[in-house]
Amino acid sequence: MSKVITPREEDYSQWYNDIVRKAQLADHSAVRGCMVIKPHGFGIWERMQRQLDDMFKETGHVNAYFPLFIPKSFLSKEAEHVEGFAKECAVVTHHRLMNDPNGNGVVVDPSAKLEEELIVRPTSETIIWNTYKDWIDSYRDLPILVNQWANVVRWELRTRLFLRTAEFLWQEGHTAHATSQEAEEETTRMLDVYATFAEEYMAMPVIKGVKTASERFAGAIDTYTIEALMQDGKALQSGTSHFLGQNFAKAFDVTFSNKENEREHVWATSWGVSTRLMGGLIMTHSDDQGLIIPPRLAPTQVVIVPIPKPNDEINAEAKKLLAELKEAGVRVSYDDDDRKRPGFKFAEHELKGIPVRLGLGKRDLEKGVIEVARRDEKTKESVPREGIATYVKNLLEEIQDNLLAKAKAHRAAHTTKVDSYDEFKKVLDEKGGFVLAHWDGSPETEQQIKEETKATIRCVPLDNPQEDGVDMISGKPSKERVLFARAY
Amino acid sequence: MSKVITPREEDYSQWYNDIVRKAQLADHSAVRGCMVIKPHGFGIWERMQRQLDDMFKETGHVNAYFPLFIPKSFLSKEAEHVEGFAKECAVVTHHRLMNDPNGNGVVVDPSAKLEEELIVRPTSETIIWNTYKDWIDSYRDLPILVNQWANVVRWELRTRLFLRTAEFLWQEGHTAHATSQEAEEETTRMLDVYATFAEEYMAMPVIKGVKTASERFAGAIDTYTIEALMQDGKALQSGTSHFLGQNFAKAFDVTFSNKENEREHVWATSWGVSTRLMGGLIMTHSDDQGLIIPPRLAPTQVVIVPIPKPNDEINAEAKKLLAELKEAGVRVSYDDDDRKRPGFKFAEHELKGIPVRLGLGKRDLEKGVIEVARRDEKTKESVPREGIATYVKNLLEEIQDNLLAKAKAHRAAHTTKVDSYDEFKKVLDEKGGFVLAHWDGSPETEQQIKEETKATIRCVPLDNPQEDGVDMISGKPSKERVLFARAY
Repeated sequence: MSKVITPREEDYSQWYNDIVRKAQLADHSAVRGCMVIKPHGFGIWERMQRQLDDMFKETGHVNAYFPLFIPKSFLSKEAEHVEGFAKECAVVTHHRLMNDPNGNGVVVDPSAKLEEELIVRPTSETIIWNTYKDWIDSYRDLPILVNQWANVVRWELRTRLFLRTAEFLWQEGHTAHATSQEAEEETTRMLDVYATFAEEYMAMPVIKGVKTASERFAGAIDTYTIEALMQDGKALQSGTSHFLGQNFAKAFDVTFSNKENEREHVWATSWGVSTRLMGGLIMTHSDDQGLIIPPRLAPTQVVIVPIPKPNDEINAEAKKLLAELKEAGVRVSYDDDDRKRPGFKFAEHELKGIPVRLGLGKRDLEKGVIEVARRDEKTKESVPREGIATYVKNLLEEIQDNLLAKAKAHRAAHTTKVDSYDEFKKVLDEKGGFVLAHWDGSPETEQQIKEETKATIRCVPLDNPQEDGVDMISGKPSKERVLFARAY
Repeated sequence: MSKVITPREEDYSQWYNDIVRKAQLADHSAVRGCMVIKPHGFGIWERMQRQLDDMFKETGHVNAYFPLFIPKSFLSKEAEHVEGFAKECAVVTHHRLMNDPNGNGVVVDPSAKLEEELIVRPTSETIIWNTYKDWIDSYRDLPILVNQWANVVRWELRTRLFLRTAEFLWQEGHTAHATSQEAEEETTRMLDVYATFAEEYMAMPVIKGVKTASERFAGAIDTYTIEALMQDGKALQSGTSHFLGQNFAKAFDVTFSNKENEREHVWATSWGVSTRLMGGLIMTHSDDQGLIIPPRLAPTQVVIVPIPKPNDEINAEAKKLLAELKEAGVRVSYDDDDRKRPGFKFAEHELKGIPVRLGLGKRDLEKGVIEVARRDEKTKESVPREGIATYVKNLLEEIQDNLLAKAKAHRAAHTTKVDSYDEFKKVLDEKGGFVLAHWDGSPETEQQIKEETKATIRCVPLDNPQEDGVDMISGKPSKERVLFARAY
């Protein structure tokens, strides 16, 4: 295997594409904007799904499934929702193909036109709230705490694997509550779940905050977000949780009888993360040798490589080692392909991001040691064969912690407080990263900054320190700094 | 709760619909032919998915994800495939909506017409084989053992919840092999996985067999099937596994270099089961009181009901009991709703099919016993509190076995060998079920029987006893009986 990854310094964007494709995570498909998620990439996504799903269930949620299609008229019902959404989307207009009368394969049967067009869901608030109307009658039917794992389609013009694709996979939680307070609590509870997942499993530190009005989800009263910082100094919005107030309940006429037997509109939240997280995972940790996967999400945590190649003795030892490690709860595989040399395999496993590699050689075995190589730091050491399972288990935890610590250090080094617009622009251009600056709260200055610098307000951080200051541009008073960055 | 289920004797079809809707499994949606799978139904489906997924992985498969959309031209490439499929499907023709100039919500933007229409996948052979072209170059790239969990759409005119819906959830395995023999082995291996799953988890006995030419999957050389028998005597095709030969490899030009460095076309299989299995589960076990779920697939296996209502003492005991049962690996919940009477709760849990109910009453507790009710036989007994967890665990296994035994007995009682066409018709009309009869192997008699009796050849059973006989209609010689039934 030759050097296949373009270095970050040379071309960060190409580096990202190289990792995604050469580490066998995903690829473009024959359908414009749609990706194929390959087994190695899907294996990581599955582990993310499983963990998030467990966390959703621990917080009282259940899964359900709603239709892929949304009747066009539904998208007209919540005015702000349709304004912000539903413009670039896949529209189903017909329900039948027929053999081409000229013999050129199949064509659309013009007689099979739908009375009302169907939209492939870009998000499911409308179809779900139309359904909740039938589920909710009394306060006893509340809360409804439902999540859906699904594919959605937004007809993006510029796509990038995982970060922005026409079709992507996600989960969308849609909850219904009797009171505003309960719904608001749910919104921040799920934001916390996302932040915990990002830090503890993805080893990706995030800043929790609330979006400004201009960056809100279409139809939401408030949009909460977790924002991560990538290695190139750009921010990645990694998950959002929306307090929807009674907007969708009003649009779809969903009411309940309260304890006083009065009808009220139901309060709503929705929250989601998607395969975009894969992009965040890649860009938080990987290096010029390839992917780096945090051990908790790695489909294979440890690979055993026979040195220089498999033979009966090494295979027997590998078998024992596999059993020991599996017994200790480690996801481990044995690379006994005898057509590839160790050096080739090392590069391959590095490229694919397997956290730990064990080299199994005859001489080492005679000495009672095993060569242990860690992917994150690219260090190697000889470790006693005795007690290796415990050593590896601890090492995996150490790697997990190390990745988070490194990502936190990178973020700390790339978060800058500025007090003037000149400084703001200079930091963005020369250093990148998060910039904390005062803002007067007006959409006008927010818009001016966006137009002039391409930086947006990522969020107003939660638990934000309050301090007196003035807006960089208008000079108007401000009580807190907000988080700016250029973003994906 | 009143009696809500129409008895089977009165109207079997209505009984099925009642179970699906009243046990909160699924419901119709605002989109024609598409269903909403409700949390209770989805909880069962999730357990099916998890188990099948584990079994796929144990047999060496990995998951991946391919696009929702298929370019129209792909469907023209495999001639038989398009003949049998792809006629009734959802066709995407546009990619943008716009505000109606007349102010009536949104309309399709006529300028955003796709150059080539996209079909919402009815199955993914074409897009996957187009992708495999890039994955396969050498025999070293084979086999590819990939599965996908996905939604698919077939524009069905007559739909029934779970059994036949326009959109449904399924898994589709798509494997690529270097030899015909390997692909054939894979085909039957996966059929065996399905049969094992159906019997051991769904407690639904199935007959494994091969389809006749007229019932084959479009594009397959051979289609293998598992066929189950429902309580009304109709068969349900519950899973299929296809040996595709080199048909798709030829259509999409997928070749590999063999060890002799010659190019050959790749050999293929595909196999799938869907949310249709939910229909099979319901119709195999349920009764006039509601759903019956085999314990291994029940999201909640045991429900504890306080009698007559929760109080501190009973709650404390319930807490201990919950901990003991969870510790023993039992999925258990406590119904401490104090607004409903026990009788109401009993009916509700019966309706939803929870396998075991524990009644927790003050007097019983003083006597050191607990009332244990099983859903399958609707029997109750007093069981010593001491050792209850072990008792319940064994009982769940007993219920699982009992459901399978009952289903097997029903099938045995409704499988009839016949030797004349008169007898054949009589059995179909009066008794229903599987009918084993000789067939001359010609599509003509198969077609005549189908037209005259609505019965089809479900399969030629594997390991079928060979015996001399004559076709019921043509009188031509036959070497074995085949399995007929009316079917869903």
